[in-house]
Amino acid sequence: MRPDDANIAGNVHGGTILKMIEEAGAIISTRHCNSQSGEHCVAALARVERTDFLSPMCIGEVAHVSAEITYTSKHSVEVQVNVLSENILTGAKRVTNRATLWYVPLSLKNVDKVLEVPPIQYAWKELEEEGKKRYEEQKLERLVTKQRNGDLIFPVFNPDRQNKEPYTVGYSQSSLIHLVGPSDCTLHGFVHGGVTMKLMDEVAGIVAARHCKTNIVTASVDAINFHEKLQKGCVITISGRMTFTSNKSMEIEVFVDADPFVDEPKERYRAVSAFFTYVSLSKEGKPLPVPQLVVETEDEKRRFEDGKGRYLQTKAKRQVQMQPLTQQ
Amino acid sequence: MRPDDANIAGNVHGGTILKMIEEAGAIISTRHCNSQSGEHCVAALARVERTDFLSPMCIGEVAHVSAEITYTSKHSVEVQVNVLSENILTGAKRVTNRATLWYVPLSLKNVDKVLEVPPIQYAWKELEEEGKKRYEEQKLERLVTKQRNGDLIFPVFNPDRQNKEPYTVGYSQSSLIHLVGPSDCTLHGFVHGGVTMKLMDEVAGIVAARHCKTNIVTASVDAINFHEKLQKGCVITISGRMTFTSNKSMEIEVFVDADPFVDEPKERYRAVSAFFTYVSLSKEGKPLPVPQLVVETEDEKRRFEDGKGRYLQTKAKRQVQMQPLTQQ
Amino acid sequence: MRPDDANIAGNVHGGTILKMIEEAGAIISTRHCNSQSGEHCVAALARVERTDFLSPMCIGEVAHVSAEITYTSKHSVEVQVNVLSENILTGAKRVTNRATLWYVPLSLKNVDKVLEVPPIQYAWKELEEEGKKRYEEQKLERLVTKQRNGDLIFPVFNPDRQNKEPYTVGYSQSSLIHLVGPSDCTLHGFVHGGVTMKLMDEVAGIVAARHCKTNIVTASVDAINFHEKLQKGCVITISGRMTFTSNKSMEIEVFVDADPFVDEPKERYRAVSAFFTYVSLSKEGKPLPVPQLVVETEDEKRRFEDGKGRYLQTKAKRQVQMQPLTQQ
Repeated sequence: MRPDDANIAGNVHGGTILKMIEEAGAIISTRHCNSQSGEHCVAALARVERTDFLSPMCIGEVAHVSAEITYTSKHSVEVQVNVLSENILTGAKRVTNRATLWYVPLSLKNVDKVLEVPPIQYAWKELEEEGKKRYEEQKLERLVTKQRNGDLIFPVFNPDRQNKEPYTVGYSQSSLIHLVGPSDCTLHGFVHGGVTMKLMDEVAGIVAARHCKTNIVTASVDAINFHEKLQKGCVITISGRMTFTSNKSMEIEVFVDADPFVDEPKERYRAVSAFFTYVSLSKEGKPLPVPQLVVETEDEKRRFEDGKGRYLQTKAKRQVQMQPLTQQ
Repeated sequence: MRPDDANIAGNVHGGTILKMIEEAGAIISTRHCNSQSGEHCVAALARVERTDFLSPMCIGEVAHVSAEITYTSKHSVEVQVNVLSENILTGAKRVTNRATLWYVPLSLKNVDKVLEVPPIQYAWKELEEEGKKRYEEQKLERLVTKQRNGDLIFPVFNPDRQNKEPYTVGYSQSSLIHLVGPSDCTLHGFVHGGVTMKLMDEVAGIVAARHCKTNIVTASVDAINFHEKLQKGCVITISGRMTFTSNKSMEIEVFVDADPFVDEPKERYRAVSAFFTYVSLSKEGKPLPVPQLVVETEDEKRRFEDGKGRYLQTKAKRQVQMQPLTQQ
Repeated sequence: MRPDDANIAGNVHGGTILKMIEEAGAIISTRHCNSQSGEHCVAALARVERTDFLSPMCIGEVAHVSAEITYTSKHSVEVQVNVLSENILTGAKRVTNRATLWYVPLSLKNVDKVLEVPPIQYAWKELEEEGKKRYEEQKLERLVTKQRNGDLIFPVFNPDRQNKEPYTVGYSQSSLIHLVGPSDCTLHGFVHGGVTMKLMDEVAGIVAARHCKTNIVTASVDAINFHEKLQKGCVITISGRMTFTSNKSMEIEVFVDADPFVDEPKERYRAVSAFFTYVSLSKEGKPLPVPQLVVETEDEKRRFEDGKGRYLQTKAKRQVQMQPLTQQ
C-alpha cells in the first residue's frame, strides 16, 4: 500500500480495497467461465453483497486478496473474497474484509449475450443448497432495487442541469471534486501547479464535449495566475461554464475553489481561475462548426460579450505577430 | 504518451501537456534558486502566460519538453518551455507548445518567506530589457486579476451549498465527474465494477469529511447492484448525500449516472446506487461522536427514517450472527 | 495487465514486469529480515542478476509473480522470482521471466546501518554451497562495476541530436528526467529499485524504437548493481545510448544520475547503470532484422566491440546451459 492509496492519517481508502476485491473476483470468475470450450466471455460484476471493513489497513502494509467460487447458477457465479493485511515489519496479520460478489459472463463477441456458467463441484450437498438460497435472495433484491432505481431517476442535485435546453450555459456546466493526495504535492505539501492545470483542462473538456457532443481538443489557455496555495489534504472543487462560442471555437471559464476541511477552520476560497479555448474535430481531424451558445441571463450575455472581446483581440494579435512555426 | 493520457480519438489531453510543462518549469527554477549557498527553497508556480496548442499530440508519440530560464527579477524566475512531439516510427517532429511560466522561490522552512533569486547572465543586454518589460506587464496583470478574484467569490454553481448551515444535507452533498479512460475498462470496453466502487467511496468520503471535519474511514458498504453497464468514453457523475447519522456513524447514499455523450443519442441514465457507512476517528484511531444530521425537507426526513431502519436492522443482525473474528 | 502497461502493439513493457518482480522481492525479503525480534528494517535492492524475457505478456493477461528466498549471507538475501502470464480466456500459461535479486536490510532508524539477516534452512547441503558460490561471484562483480561507475562520469548527450544521421549512436540516444514522488519511495524515503528499472526500460525502449522504427520488445537485461540510494525529492536523469547491434538484436546502455537539488549540497552522482537488449518484431510477432549501428568515434567503436564480446559470451553460455523451458 502506497501513500496514494491512503488518506492523510495513513488509512487505506475503502475504495482502494473494494477495487482490489473486485479485481480478484473478476479474474477468478472470468477464468472459471472460460474453462470449458466454447465462446469466450468476460465476467461482469452484477452485485456486491453488504461488506464490513473490519479493521483499517495502513500505508506500507501488504494486502493479501484471496478469492473462491462458492456457488454457480446457470448464468451467474458467486465469489467470496477475503482480504488480509500484513505488517511485514512485525508479522501481524488482520482480516480487513470479507466480501461476496456476483458475476455474469458476457460474450466477448456480443455483450448483450449472457453465456452459461460451467457448474462447480460442492464438497457437501448443503453448500449447494445454501448457495441456492443466497442466489434466490439476491435475485429478489436485485429486482426490487431495479424498480426503485427506475423511480429514482435524478431526484437529486444539480437539478437545474436536467431541465436545461441543449446549448444553454446551464446544460454544459460541470464541476468535479478532487481530494488532494501526496503525489499531487511538492516537498512543501502544496499542490503542483501542473496538477491543478490538468484538472482544470479535464473539466473544461467535459463542458466542451457536453456542448457539442463531438471529439474536442484544447486549442489554447489564457494566462493563469496562482494567487493562493492549495494544501495537501484539502478538497478542491473545479467548476467550468461556457462563456462564448465563435464559429469554430468555444471559450470555457474554469474556477478552482478549495475547502481546507480537516485541519483548519479556514473558509472556502477561490484559488485559481482561467479561460480555456477548445475546438471540435471531425474523425479526420478537421475543425467542425460549433453550435452557438444560447445565453439566457444578463450575466451570461455580459460574459459572452467579454469572451467575444478576448476572441477578437487574440485574433488581431495573431494576424500581426504570428510567424510561421518552423520545426526545430 | 499512454492510452490514459489521451481521449478516445487518441489526442493527448491538453492538461497532460500542461502538467509536463509545469514539471519541467518547477525543476529548472528550483534547481536555479538553490544554486547558491543559503536557505533551501522550492519554486512555486505564480503564473502561466497564455499558451496555444499548435498541433495535436497522439498516443505512442514521445514528448520532448525543454525548459530555459529567460529572466530573473529579485524574487521571481521566468521560464520558457518548448514541447515537441516525435513520432519515433516515422521520425516526424512537430512543435506542439511554447509556454512561459513565472515561479517564486519559497523557503522550505517557512513557506510564507520568499527568497532571493540568483541573477542569470544575459547574452545581450536587450534580452534583459525585454525580460524586464515582460516582468512588469505580468506583475500588473496579476494585480488586476487578484482584485477581480476577490470580487468574484463564488458567483457560480452549486450556489446553495454556500448558504447552507453546517450539518444539513445540502452542506455536505458533493459530486464528481469522471471521464472513463482505457485503463478503467475491461476487454469489452466497459468500466470495471471495482473502478466504479472506488469512485463511489471517494465521493462518500468527501461527504463524510465535510460533515464532521475529522479523519473518517469506511466502515461498511451496503449491497450494490450493477444494473447498467458503463461504457468507455462516457462521462460519469458520482453524487453523494448524507441520509442518516447515529451517535458514531454516518450513512451516505451515492449515485452513479452516465452521460454517453459522444457516441450515441442515448439519454443520461442511473447506473448504480449504494449506501456507504463511515465512522469518524480521533488521531489515536478511536471512534469519535458524529454531529447529528439536520434534516429540513420531508424527503430528507423520510430518508433519515429509512436509514435508521437499515441501521437498526444491521445492528440486530450483527448481535445474532457475529462470530468473533479470529486471525487466519 | 492494463493498456497503460503495454506498448501500442499490446506487449507489456519489460519495465512493468521488472517492477513487479522487484516488488515481490522486496516484500519477501523485508518480511524475512524482520522475522526475528530486534530492530525493524526495510530490504533495499542491491543487485539484479541478468534476466531474460522468455515470452511476451499481453494486455488482458493475468501476471503471477512468485518469490522464494534461496540463500542468505550475514548481510544479504538472495531471492528468486518467477513470472507466469495466464490468458484467462484460453487458460494458456507461459513462463515469461525468471530473475534473481539480492537485497540488503537497512535499519529503519538509521539507513546507513546494515542489519543481520536471519539464516534460512536448506533442504540439502548442496543448496547452501551453491548459494554461497553465487554470493561470492556477485560480490566480486559488484566491486568491479563500482569502480567502473566511478570512472564513467557523464559523457553527457544530446544537444546536436537533430543533425545526426540515422543509425548513428547520436541519432537514437535519449534521456528523460523524473522528479521522485512519494509513491516511488519505500518507508525510508528511498526510490524502490523497481521504479528505477521501469524508467530505465522506458528510455532503452525509446532508443531502440528510434533506431529501428518498428515494434520493439525487451529481450534481456544484464546484471544491474544499485550502488547509491536515490532519495525522495531528488531529480533523476535517465539516459540511454545504443552500444551494439547484431543481426536481430540491439544492446542499449542506460545510466541513472541523481541531482539531490534541494536538500543537500551533494554533487550529481551516478546511481545505476545497465545494459538492455531489445529485439524488433513484425506485426505477427516474428523477429525482424535490425539495421546496423553506425559507429563514428573511437569510444563508440570500443563500446561496440565490448558489446559484441558480451553478445558472443551470452550466446555461448546459452548453447551450453540452456535447458528447454517447460511450462509450469
